[in-house]
Amino acid sequence: MQQPKLKALFLNCTLKKSPGVSHTQRLIDFVSKEMEPLNVETETVRIIDFNIPFSIHTHAKDEPKDDWPKIHKKIIKADIIIICSPIWFGTRASVTQLTLERMSGMYDERDKNTGQYPLYNKVGACLVTGNEDGAHDVISNTLFNLTHIGCTIPPNADSYWVGEAGPGPSFGDDDAGYENLFVNRTAKYLAYNTAQLARVLKKSPLDLNLDEIDREVDEHIGNRTKHIRS
Amino acid sequence: MQQPKLKALFLNCTLKKSPGVSHTQRLIDFVSKEMEPLNVETETVRIIDFNIPFSIHTHAKDEPKDDWPKIHKKIIKADIIIICSPIWFGTRASVTQLTLERMSGMYDERDKNTGQYPLYNKVGACLVTGNEDGAHDVISNTLFNLTHIGCTIPPNADSYWVGEAGPGPSFGDDDAGYENLFVNRTAKYLAYNTAQLARVLKKSPLDLNLDEIDREVDEHIGNRTKHIRS
Amino acid sequence: MQQPKLKALFLNCTLKKSPGVSHTQRLIDFVSKEMEPLNVETETVRIIDFNIPFSIHTHAKDEPKDDWPKIHKKIIKADIIIICSPIWFGTRASVTQLTLERMSGMYDERDKNTGQYPLYNKVGACLVTGNEDGAHDVISNTLFNLTHIGCTIPPNADSYWVGEAGPGPSFGDDDAGYENLFVNRTAKYLAYNTAQLARVLKKSPLDLNLDEIDREVDEHIGNRTKHIRS
Amino acid sequence: MQQPKLKALFLNCTLKKSPGVSHTQRLIDFVSKEMEPLNVETETVRIIDFNIPFSIHTHAKDEPKDDWPKIHKKIIKADIIIICSPIWFGTRASVTQLTLERMSGMYDERDKNTGQYPLYNKVGACLVTGNEDGAHDVISNTLFNLTHIGCTIPPNADSYWVGEAGPGPSFGDDDAGYENLFVNRTAKYLAYNTAQLARVLKKSPLDLNLDEIDREVDEHIGNRTKHIRS
Repeated sequence: MQQPKLKALFLNCTLKKSPGVSHTQRLIDFVSKEMEPLNVETETVRIIDFNIPFSIHTHAKDEPKDDWPKIHKKIIKADIIIICSPIWFGTRASVTQLTLERMSGMYDERDKNTGQYPLYNKVGACLVTGNEDGAHDVISNTLFNLTHIGCTIPPNADSYWVGEAGPGPSFGDDDAGYENLFVNRTAKYLAYNTAQLARVLKKSPLDLNLDEIDREVDEHIGNRTKHIRS
Repeated sequence: MQQPKLKALFLNCTLKKSPGVSHTQRLIDFVSKEMEPLNVETETVRIIDFNIPFSIHTHAKDEPKDDWPKIHKKIIKADIIIICSPIWFGTRASVTQLTLERMSGMYDERDKNTGQYPLYNKVGACLVTGNEDGAHDVISNTLFNLTHIGCTIPPNADSYWVGEAGPGPSFGDDDAGYENLFVNRTAKYLAYNTAQLARVLKKSPLDLNLDEIDREVDEHIGNRTKHIRS
Repeated sequence: MQQPKLKALFLNCTLKKSPGVSHTQRLIDFVSKEMEPLNVETETVRIIDFNIPFSIHTHAKDEPKDDWPKIHKKIIKADIIIICSPIWFGTRASVTQLTLERMSGMYDERDKNTGQYPLYNKVGACLVTGNEDGAHDVISNTLFNLTHIGCTIPPNADSYWVGEAGPGPSFGDDDAGYENLFVNRTAKYLAYNTAQLARVLKKSPLDLNLDEIDREVDEHIGNRTKHIRS
Repeated sequence: MQQPKLKALFLNCTLKKSPGVSHTQRLIDFVSKEMEPLNVETETVRIIDFNIPFSIHTHAKDEPKDDWPKIHKKIIKADIIIICSPIWFGTRASVTQLTLERMSGMYDERDKNTGQYPLYNKVGACLVTGNEDGAHDVISNTLFNLTHIGCTIPPNADSYWVGEAGPGPSFGDDDAGYENLFVNRTAKYLAYNTAQLARVLKKSPLDLNLDEIDREVDEHIGNRTKHIRS
């Protein structure tokens, strides 16, 4: 029996507008091919092709043209969210950081009944490409950010390719990386684990009531404060 | 009906041997109190009190006295593993890094049937204390490392306290932090989410067969290589 | 006798356009006041007020309106360059990353005679504000990036303010931080050291010839390769 | 005319005791060869061969056998200090972190007359080896730490080698890295710039009086506090 269909959303944070070549897109294509046989429908949003003002809110204040709310909707509908970043100057690209800043607007969008952040019971993952060094730093920051707005992270939830120290080819240039053992394995691990965990969480969702905890804490600190200070 | 009992293991990576005051232990005590009502049995190992040689293996080569295997056993038996680190010079403590280096020996201990790393279907989390700045860097690196050896990370799986910029009191000195809204909330979020996710994974474990994938990739790259190069 | 006049350029990487309140600007004002008595002329560029397309080049390809070259000129004329960043989601702001990506275009602008990168013999520094945690990570990445395009970094070349763990006031809100011992000291250390080092390097510039070294290396590797491979 | 002799101290933070092969030592040897023609005397201390207890002080409390003070003396006598680290689990090795924790004891050893930290007017640099990814993170944290205890960092003060994504050879295994263009260039840049800057600072030392500033700040905050609060 086939598993229920899932949606995976890749956010491609390349600095290059379409139709420019995006090495990150190459890795996305590489990984999506592994997801489709698992009955996961994939979609990619290339952030730079949209008009996304700098902001830390879902709706950018005083910005007449803001495409973010459209992307926000897609994120909310997805079961698996995969942030896909190039490395620039050793860290995650500005477009990746912009994307996460806009996603941090979700801190203000807690569920009415449970207070859960909007990505609770969704699964997060990360892809990185660069011509050299920096992938671990990008992934660790990015996965951590995703957990703060609700994502659960399965094991081996990252796949990346970087070359040897110093300038050199990027992913897919002259086939660079396509035969790399590590990227081939991790692409498959990621696809399988994100899909399975997303299905597990659909069946058995985390039911933490953050609002209740917050109220409890407010009360406790209020009391405790009184006790200590009087 | 009560939930089945779980084991949570806190690895306290303070630099100070017992019975010295460990601020990190104070946060551990703070968080464990939230876990016990959830039918989670907690245990803390203070790494510095043991003889742990530098090594990246489970058994340190040529070291006559190595206590790590004992700790390794405890990790394997736990359902929830919580790395607890002070911040020194803005990053995770040497003892934390040593602990993770020893844990990286688990890369060589894949399950005989599935090839899974030993922490698959266990849940990871992180606690951090410092007198100032550095918690995000410690947590992001640490949670990421845990996913690589098999842990799943629930949302809001970290709790930390740091003070204002510059030297100052550490957690619990003159009650510093005990009434902090953020640490009180995150301690409870972490306790609930790690326990619930551990139970979910016990019931519905991730069943990825890494060995099978590795064989598939080896074969594919072999074939592909031949095709390209001949 | 008064020291020769120097120019310090602060690049304010806030996400908020003028005339919105920028907490980072408050710290810039705080630090500039310390520089002026040292005969350092200060100027601030608020990056977000300009039209700066995403790019890793000094001149963004296919972008009809690109204000970066104007800012690039100011950087080239300055003696001291100070990257000033807010923290968002624990790391440096997207505008900071964008600024550094544009500055990385300088890799292609080596001096005709020496091959030096354009910021050789200039001094770099970093300011950071946030309501909590993340300053060390922002500063370390940023100062490191500056050394790669030529800056020299004096001791105590950073000043930052962040509050206690969790949400809270930002720098200058209800006077937060203005009386913090650490930020007051580091503002003065930074001002003095950047000015003095800039004067030292004006008198005794680093004269490394990178082009010569590159030619030497090319030849050596060529020879060595032949030796090894034949 | 030959330049005055300088001393460069390499702190090798490998996890492997002598006579085990240290890939980091290979890079040290590679870089020292570039320093000697510049009249720089080099010395390497392999930290793991000594008995260095965990501590954040120059003299570890209650530790009968502590070799750190000997190494501390060597650091104080050097003109150039080069932290040399392997990468483990994507970040700097535990021995590197331990070394920096011990060096942080220098915060308490300010000059009697100027209050300067002990590494003022010394030059810092960093070498990194790993089989893959992580060098930027190690270097940025390490150079930043060095500036806090007084070092000045010249441009291009780092040299590293890492291989392509995933497990693979380390520096020097089967000649890996020895012919890499980037490591060959950066080794020479680092050697030249650290030596020249050390000579510049010997002739024109930074003369910041930190004690004076601290007194000024204490007084100012006292006054300001009174003004605001009364």
